[in-house]
Amino acid sequence: MMSFQPGTTGIVVQEIERAPRDVVDGLAQMGCATIHEAQGRTGLLASYMRPIYSGARVAGSALTILAPPMDNWMIHVAIEQISDGDIMVLATTSPSDAGYFGDLLATSAQAHGCRGLVIDAGVRDLAELAQMGFPVWSKAVGSQGTIKETLGSVNVPVVCAGALVNPGDVIVADDDGVVCVRREKAAEVLEKARARVVNEEAKRARFAAGELGLDIYGMRDRLAEKGLRYV
Amino acid sequence: MMSFQPGTTGIVVQEIERAPRDVVDGLAQMGCATIHEAQGRTGLLASYMRPIYSGARVAGSALTILAPPMDNWMIHVAIEQISDGDIMVLATTSPSDAGYFGDLLATSAQAHGCRGLVIDAGVRDLAELAQMGFPVWSKAVGSQGTIKETLGSVNVPVVCAGALVNPGDVIVADDDGVVCVRREKAAEVLEKARARVVNEEAKRARFAAGELGLDIYGMRDRLAEKGLRYV
Amino acid sequence: MMSFQPGTTGIVVQEIERAPRDVVDGLAQMGCATIHEAQGRTGLLASYMRPIYSGARVAGSALTILAPPMDNWMIHVAIEQISDGDIMVLATTSPSDAGYFGDLLATSAQAHGCRGLVIDAGVRDLAELAQMGFPVWSKAVGSQGTIKETLGSVNVPVVCAGALVNPGDVIVADDDGVVCVRREKAAEVLEKARARVVNEEAKRARFAAGELGLDIYGMRDRLAEKGLRYV
Amino acid sequence: MMSFQPGTTGIVVQEIERAPRDVVDGLAQMGCATIHEAQGRTGLLASYMRPIYSGARVAGSALTILAPPMDNWMIHVAIEQISDGDIMVLATTSPSDAGYFGDLLATSAQAHGCRGLVIDAGVRDLAELAQMGFPVWSKAVGSQGTIKETLGSVNVPVVCAGALVNPGDVIVADDDGVVCVRREKAAEVLEKARARVVNEEAKRARFAAGELGLDIYGMRDRLAEKGLRYV
Amino acid sequence: MMSFQPGTTGIVVQEIERAPRDVVDGLAQMGCATIHEAQGRTGLLASYMRPIYSGARVAGSALTILAPPMDNWMIHVAIEQISDGDIMVLATTSPSDAGYFGDLLATSAQAHGCRGLVIDAGVRDLAELAQMGFPVWSKAVGSQGTIKETLGSVNVPVVCAGALVNPGDVIVADDDGVVCVRREKAAEVLEKARARVVNEEAKRARFAAGELGLDIYGMRDRLAEKGLRYV
Amino acid sequence: MMSFQPGTTGIVVQEIERAPRDVVDGLAQMGCATIHEAQGRTGLLASYMRPIYSGARVAGSALTILAPPMDNWMIHVAIEQISDGDIMVLATTSPSDAGYFGDLLATSAQAHGCRGLVIDAGVRDLAELAQMGFPVWSKAVGSQGTIKETLGSVNVPVVCAGALVNPGDVIVADDDGVVCVRREKAAEVLEKARARVVNEEAKRARFAAGELGLDIYGMRDRLAEKGLRYV
Repeated sequence: MMSFQPGTTGIVVQEIERAPRDVVDGLAQMGCATIHEAQGRTGLLASYMRPIYSGARVAGSALTILAPPMDNWMIHVAIEQISDGDIMVLATTSPSDAGYFGDLLATSAQAHGCRGLVIDAGVRDLAELAQMGFPVWSKAVGSQGTIKETLGSVNVPVVCAGALVNPGDVIVADDDGVVCVRREKAAEVLEKARARVVNEEAKRARFAAGELGLDIYGMRDRLAEKGLRYV
Repeated sequence: MMSFQPGTTGIVVQEIERAPRDVVDGLAQMGCATIHEAQGRTGLLASYMRPIYSGARVAGSALTILAPPMDNWMIHVAIEQISDGDIMVLATTSPSDAGYFGDLLATSAQAHGCRGLVIDAGVRDLAELAQMGFPVWSKAVGSQGTIKETLGSVNVPVVCAGALVNPGDVIVADDDGVVCVRREKAAEVLEKARARVVNEEAKRARFAAGELGLDIYGMRDRLAEKGLRYV
Repeated sequence: MMSFQPGTTGIVVQEIERAPRDVVDGLAQMGCATIHEAQGRTGLLASYMRPIYSGARVAGSALTILAPPMDNWMIHVAIEQISDGDIMVLATTSPSDAGYFGDLLATSAQAHGCRGLVIDAGVRDLAELAQMGFPVWSKAVGSQGTIKETLGSVNVPVVCAGALVNPGDVIVADDDGVVCVRREKAAEVLEKARARVVNEEAKRARFAAGELGLDIYGMRDRLAEKGLRYV
Repeated sequence: MMSFQPGTTGIVVQEIERAPRDVVDGLAQMGCATIHEAQGRTGLLASYMRPIYSGARVAGSALTILAPPMDNWMIHVAIEQISDGDIMVLATTSPSDAGYFGDLLATSAQAHGCRGLVIDAGVRDLAELAQMGFPVWSKAVGSQGTIKETLGSVNVPVVCAGALVNPGDVIVADDDGVVCVRREKAAEVLEKARARVVNEEAKRARFAAGELGLDIYGMRDRLAEKGLRYV
Repeated sequence: MMSFQPGTTGIVVQEIERAPRDVVDGLAQMGCATIHEAQGRTGLLASYMRPIYSGARVAGSALTILAPPMDNWMIHVAIEQISDGDIMVLATTSPSDAGYFGDLLATSAQAHGCRGLVIDAGVRDLAELAQMGFPVWSKAVGSQGTIKETLGSVNVPVVCAGALVNPGDVIVADDDGVVCVRREKAAEVLEKARARVVNEEAKRARFAAGELGLDIYGMRDRLAEKGLRYV
Repeated sequence: MMSFQPGTTGIVVQEIERAPRDVVDGLAQMGCATIHEAQGRTGLLASYMRPIYSGARVAGSALTILAPPMDNWMIHVAIEQISDGDIMVLATTSPSDAGYFGDLLATSAQAHGCRGLVIDAGVRDLAELAQMGFPVWSKAVGSQGTIKETLGSVNVPVVCAGALVNPGDVIVADDDGVVCVRREKAAEVLEKARARVVNEEAKRARFAAGELGLDIYGMRDRLAEKGLRYV
């Protein structure tokens, strides 16, 4: 497998390593916030990345796309590289809010097993995408079209919404945002996330029964020590 | 029919020309993104114009309103001028996020056949508007009220969200945004949009069957020519 | 009952006065926009405060929280102070978009009778909060976690989204935004709001029947006087 | 002289009418804020248009440019059309923050008598432009380059920063912003602006001597009538 | 002296207490960042408040103004209440970017001893204000004018740029921002700030000589304890 | 020399490779826009990175700092690692506008040969930094202080303002923005940039003499071919 500098253009890497399917699927159940905690509060994309509809929660292997501003040519190139279970992650070489992606491309991507799109640019055909159940997290919504003039790359490392994403990293996205898990750490992060969830379930039962965080977490002494005064 | 400079205040133009109803209704089925393409990527309002609820898609003849900041007096004047099938398009003489429009005015507008509102300012009573099925595309949501002190105009050309809208132009709006079609070009744009839709339907079937855009659009040669390397 | 300067840290005020329950519940039915008008267009929080899901409308007594940036320790302290029917109102000592609040804390708060959260910072676990029916109005959505290091206060006056909120003030929030009603004025504001609603109902019937605001409000003379020209 | 719809592409209008030089030069001395008042608070470009350096105040005849996003080809075309005393006004067919203009183009424009640039996009080479004394009002600063691929137009009406600008209109720009004066109203606006300035000079002397606006403008009665209470 | 709820309209409080002149002048020399630290990181106005020119550093007693959106009537009322050494602090009852203040009002305010303006809205006549040496910290720059229609208040507590400011509090503003010091704490804060400055001077000498913060502050042990690895 | 994943915390890399001094100094003379072009329009940091004062133009080797939000501890650690001619490049693990850096730290950094700071966060003491001639490019200005609690890293790769910066890469910054040049490409980029400058100098003379870009670049035929009409 060859590797490239982030930002390299004119390259399509055809073979990338992916995390095991069961690990990816396990991460999907954990959600973005839990995973972000489980891996030491790293890997979060910028909070301006919002889902186009509520309630989706997916995980997949990152198929990275580097695209010029206002140019979605590389998405066509990328779709040929999709493996079942991938999520496309599109970064631009300079900022653009144009609508790179709509229902035709989603039909094509879905036909090849793509689970969703994370795009640091704009998207359109929102009603159709929601109807298809093809989730997208994007920076913008817009009808402004794109051209097909300039090369970018597929499956080189990219900086998407402020986070470095390598091809094959695991992307987890839901209503809370998008987080990137390094492929080689995915199993370990899943394990830690599961432990958090088990722990949280136990806590939830106690909270639901009316117990206070002050007591569950034993916070009272430290608050007193810091000088908190009840009046 | 008299015509006025954009931005003229103190005027209500009572007679305007409108596109034929079947053309307007035809455009409603095409959607904002398709029409924007069909008319050469022109006429799009700024992407900060967002619908207050998802799933609406309407078209109508623009009944234009020019209103002072924080002053919604002209909306009352405009409602008297509504013809069945109109969409009100409100621009301000200087920026304002105040809530110009709520459920009372919507009740009144709807009673006269108005199909929706496009407003480069704020709106309120969101829950009630959604329940009524009265769609609004706005720059802001806010409870901040307005006054009734200063004249604007009705049915003069306005610059709304960065686009020039003439009275009687056709407005098409959906989840992707808002686009303005010149009245005198409406039939021609509809025809082009329909051709695009037919073409897209054929494409969609091929995409759904797994064919690649690379092949459907014959992109491989040009990509190679530009130097794209598969590794 | 002791009172403190806005912004005082290290204090938990345990006893606060609240408005009568029936007044609070009455205000919930009026909605944010009506109340804002009824109290002379005051008390509105900044319009960047948006609900995490549509359709909620609540009122409650403000349990105020002053929290350091990225530090949600005080929420745990505040939950112990909840009385049935309260809404937590969190302001920060300096701006932060971190995710202070998620489903575990919501479970705890709900178990003690809390009706919702108004937070001038970030929130996470959106899907779970919507499922629980725990409404939140926030400045941001984000998975970014918080720490528990520094004291803030509970039930001191706070500046939240640009509005001063005293503990025990009534908070009313819906899709249009969030408004704060001074506790000692709550009954009077409710009465005025009810009068507005009765008046609006009568108006709505007339509008629905096609009567014009121009006539209902007798605006024609003043428009003519200001020089409005019909052409 | 031919005229075109705003937004028409592929056209260069070579002959435009301009306001008399002495009127333009007179307007330059008035400043943006005064002129905006003098023409009834119209014609102001959006306040996001900021000067790249402080202290410039210019007026000129608008040489309008409509340019595609990230494409500055039309600036070269426009420079050939410059008459001594023009200001170039560039609008884009869709939003772009790219750096359309730098010191080379400024050298060329200045050599043909251009007095400055108003651009609803980005600019670069700030240090050099300041050194040359070539003033620019722009939406953005950025090093991001542009291409030369797609036609726009020169000297068609454009919507720039939310205001409609016709070729030959007078542009006045200073630290307070940018205002557009219709060519055919320029003399009248200048007269009104001069009257304002004379009036303001008289006022300034009285203010400097310590007289109060309350007395100069006779505001005390109306304030009392509105119910202002001194306590 | 009477006191009022923040946000009360229709009131001019004529007598307010101010901090001693030498304390105010002392604070002017400390600067915004130092004072913010010295008073426990409180009192800072939002960072969107920017000076209209660089290099000013002033302190003064807050003469507070509450103004309606787009209405600067209350500034005229406020100027009559200026005592030598005051800084006007203007908040609005709802957001506005209009240009409330220009060189005429500055002439008037300066004639009465006003040291500057802090305004959570817009300002104009920037070149003239800079020439006069009248410093302004504002949210916006704009030529958009205001009206004189609606009452606000003078010298009631206001929320300005997210901070509560009482009449008579000390305002300190420079290139770093604006901070508010409670009047009754002003002497104590000055003392603490001076201690910080003395301490910083000593530190500066050591830093300039090449000593490291790691050693001056004895940070090495704690860094090692936290696990920092040098590789 | 060890290398690390972007975002690794708890690490200080003490030995990094740097580009030759004459290459770095050569790049300083080229400026940000020219270099961005010369290296194929890559490496530009987001355009929200603005200089705190006008007119600075510097180049240096990147000493990278990864810092937690609101925590500037790592800057102290980084200063010990400065080599003469370095520029500090600070990225945060999550967004923060706090004021990480002021005149004391600048005194220390300057004493060790640091040429400037590029910081995707806030800065303070602007007047003092300008006086010292210590240039900073930052996302924000603010007096809000930081703490010293959590480890980050020094000299690991970081994502700063959307661009990946490796330790030892060359940073060039001026009024137009900030660009990053890969260390191993620095000499090659310098050569290309010099060729551009020579070329531009020749062009500038021709432009100054009134020659048109249309002729210098031979654009007339292609414009005609694209269908540009002169009317």
